[in-house]
Amino acid sequence: MILHGYFRSSASYRVRIALGLKGLAHEHVFHHLRKNEQRAPDYLATNPQGLVPSLVLDDGQVLTQSLAICDYLDEVWPEPPLLPKHPVQRAMVRAFAQVIACDIHPLQNLKVLRRLAALGHSEADTQAWARAFIDEGLDACANLIADESGPFCFGAVPSLADLCLIPQLANARRFGVELRWPRLLEAERACANVAAFVTAAPEHQADSE
Amino acid sequence: MILHGYFRSSASYRVRIALGLKGLAHEHVFHHLRKNEQRAPDYLATNPQGLVPSLVLDDGQVLTQSLAICDYLDEVWPEPPLLPKHPVQRAMVRAFAQVIACDIHPLQNLKVLRRLAALGHSEADTQAWARAFIDEGLDACANLIADESGPFCFGAVPSLADLCLIPQLANARRFGVELRWPRLLEAERACANVAAFVTAAPEHQADSE
Repeated sequence: MILHGYFRSSASYRVRIALGLKGLAHEHVFHHLRKNEQRAPDYLATNPQGLVPSLVLDDGQVLTQSLAICDYLDEVWPEPPLLPKHPVQRAMVRAFAQVIACDIHPLQNLKVLRRLAALGHSEADTQAWARAFIDEGLDACANLIADESGPFCFGAVPSLADLCLIPQLANARRFGVELRWPRLLEAERACANVAAFVTAAPEHQADSE
Repeated sequence: MILHGYFRSSASYRVRIALGLKGLAHEHVFHHLRKNEQRAPDYLATNPQGLVPSLVLDDGQVLTQSLAICDYLDEVWPEPPLLPKHPVQRAMVRAFAQVIACDIHPLQNLKVLRRLAALGHSEADTQAWARAFIDEGLDACANLIADESGPFCFGAVPSLADLCLIPQLANARRFGVELRWPRLLEAERACANVAAFVTAAPEHQADSE
């Protein structure tokens, strides 16, 4: 398998963690988003949306959208599972992941901040915009797991929730968000002891700057 | 079950379609988003994020995030399925749904357009912002199903893809996006013959204006 990504793309980071947790062999191809390499014709032939990540399977099939890719990996290689067994618990984990993937990340990614800059907003304005959505969304995340046992987001093993949380916390730090949620930081510390999370970190990627 | 929603919320609309396809009995509670009723204390006790939809199960358990709710419904009531059987096909349907749920909808919802207005942008500016993201995203959707047989997005039966597409097309029309994708309109015509899609439409909700 080939994962097309970018070291700092948090959606790519989610898939890197999932591949690591499953122990699946894969190659990386990196596209520098700030240099718009994801808009190069050869990559657009792979993913016409010009977004990362894309996962190219061994038969050439291209999968896109990080959460769809994670579900695929979990269905084909079920161990260790990314979701609990019980439908209500699965829905809670998915909801947590979707607060990040639908309510936070789309509003603070490079594409959107560039669109704001094109409307005449300063760097300070766009950073404040990103911080507001991250703060509001992470607060919702902390709320969702307030009654769950730790140390991971949902219990004793990492799940799709942690796999979305860790990249989002990295973004939160880059934007200077005050990390005021002890429960989220507890999950982060637990993930820091899991090799798949460590090797997937932006600073350990070949294209890291 | 009780579905908390708003007639014009496209995330609520997705869940209404799913409940209808599964033939599941449910009540509706509507919250008027333009009047900020979703921020009322009694609703925040149900969903602290103050977003719709929320689905309250018969035992009081609250589920949030429309796609997580749809997955839950599909896992507990598998017929008719919202996803195909094969993992690659499932991943394609999920990717289509996520282009809408992650790349389009978060950027054109009321909350975000209000934030733009608060930054001093005119109604014309915010509408243009919404149109740009809708146009770009629907183009990606059309691309994803270019090789799929119709009449629905993925073949002969409706799926999670159609259930996201139909509400997004309704939004596209409200924002004045030119619907330049015959394949998406073919899927829309097929859905118009399915009762669950018709009864879920905004204009058929009790809170419709």
